[in-house]
Amino acid sequence: MGFNEISFRVRYSETDQMGVVYHGNYAQYLEMGRVEWLRKLGISYKALETSGIILPVVSLNINFKKSALYDDLLTVKTILKKKPLVKIEFDYEIYNEQHDLLAVANTTLAFMDALKKRPIKCPAHILEKITN
Amino acid sequence: MGFNEISFRVRYSETDQMGVVYHGNYAQYLEMGRVEWLRKLGISYKALETSGIILPVVSLNINFKKSALYDDLLTVKTILKKKPLVKIEFDYEIYNEQHDLLAVANTTLAFMDALKKRPIKCPAHILEKITN
Amino acid sequence: MGFNEISFRVRYSETDQMGVVYHGNYAQYLEMGRVEWLRKLGISYKALETSGIILPVVSLNINFKKSALYDDLLTVKTILKKKPLVKIEFDYEIYNEQHDLLAVANTTLAFMDALKKRPIKCPAHILEKITN
Amino acid sequence: MGFNEISFRVRYSETDQMGVVYHGNYAQYLEMGRVEWLRKLGISYKALETSGIILPVVSLNINFKKSALYDDLLTVKTILKKKPLVKIEFDYEIYNEQHDLLAVANTTLAFMDALKKRPIKCPAHILEKITN
Repeated sequence: MGFNEISFRVRYSETDQMGVVYHGNYAQYLEMGRVEWLRKLGISYKALETSGIILPVVSLNINFKKSALYDDLLTVKTILKKKPLVKIEFDYEIYNEQHDLLAVANTTLAFMDALKKRPIKCPAHILEKITN
Repeated sequence: MGFNEISFRVRYSETDQMGVVYHGNYAQYLEMGRVEWLRKLGISYKALETSGIILPVVSLNINFKKSALYDDLLTVKTILKKKPLVKIEFDYEIYNEQHDLLAVANTTLAFMDALKKRPIKCPAHILEKITN
Repeated sequence: MGFNEISFRVRYSETDQMGVVYHGNYAQYLEMGRVEWLRKLGISYKALETSGIILPVVSLNINFKKSALYDDLLTVKTILKKKPLVKIEFDYEIYNEQHDLLAVANTTLAFMDALKKRPIKCPAHILEKITN
Repeated sequence: MGFNEISFRVRYSETDQMGVVYHGNYAQYLEMGRVEWLRKLGISYKALETSGIILPVVSLNINFKKSALYDDLLTVKTILKKKPLVKIEFDYEIYNEQHDLLAVANTTLAFMDALKKRPIKCPAHILEKITN
């Protein structure tokens, strides 16, 4: 099932007056991580939404170990936790350029029919790409 | 046509490592100002959107005079600039609790049909409430 | 030890294209909750920082149950979990105006000397206000 | 004096319920543009701040022409407007992958002594890099 890594620089707007990245902004980093994890498998989250399937986050857990600083080049490592059914669960690790582990995180997202707002199973074409 | 004022506290997340409110966050303050200006006239922007009319921002101009700080109790004064036609224009002044003028701003928004994504005239029921 | 409630409206900027509040923005709501919890006890978080003590978030956990919508009047209930030592832990519940429970959350923050960047015990004057 | 371009993808968190990038988020895009413009000249804005010089934004002007969408690969073109003195002024153009012009913008920033909070002239070593 594998993992994927993406890297990007911390924006000034993401810092707070403690001089570090505001903790709530990590949610965006995790989102970028899993979107690129999907893209690497050949799945566009944008196209998924256009096809009527949304993936709302149902749980978000982050442990902060070390601060991320302005202009840091961060890397988010995204790991699929298990084969998805009606939900999909990811673990994440966030590192800076010195390979310090800044945070570990976990999110669970639910497959939902966008129109009916009802839970659905992970679509077959996605499951196939994940398990290949 | 009048004006309206709203007050709220600066959130920690809105500061940056300069120890002041990140300049881009003022856009949110202006939005809160004009939404409450509309509400005071009896117009819910939420209901307007539900009825199929959206008001995208077409221009945003802010002059920053003095910094807003964490936990400051800010006041946004929203002033309609002129009778709206296909666009609606607002001036704004942002003050802190010591009545220091922190910023002056101006936004222009366009009345749009949400489905057709085309400009429309300011709806009659809104014009009536504004000019009364 | 008690609890405290604050209410505020969802900003347009806080929504995403799913038509609901972006999940990462809840971190700001929790922060507003605990800052007002402290204020009610007579503790200004701003003054605490000025005195050289910061309270970085070391863990953030949120379970999302129902979506928050634009213009919703939300209420955050903040509950101190136990007597703080070197860390302080809060539980939270977020409700909309219809009293639907939208999310439950938990955060742990560490008392830190801002200059030395080292953990410290909860200061006596805060402990006193909390346990009174 | 030249210009510089950077490209990045729109994050989900940057959209709003109109299904487009929230207009206030463009301020972050402009900031990323000018920071990379400086980096290309061999100037690290982070190092500038560490050396005691900050560059607060004193005016922000954006005209929105076409919406940016989720997952769009945007390009920000940053152009120095004139030789900086106590202020530095940039023009910007934001494009999507289809080369549609989405927005034009202008910002003015002031060179400031971070400790004294007083305006200063553009430091000689920066002026030299800009005019070379």
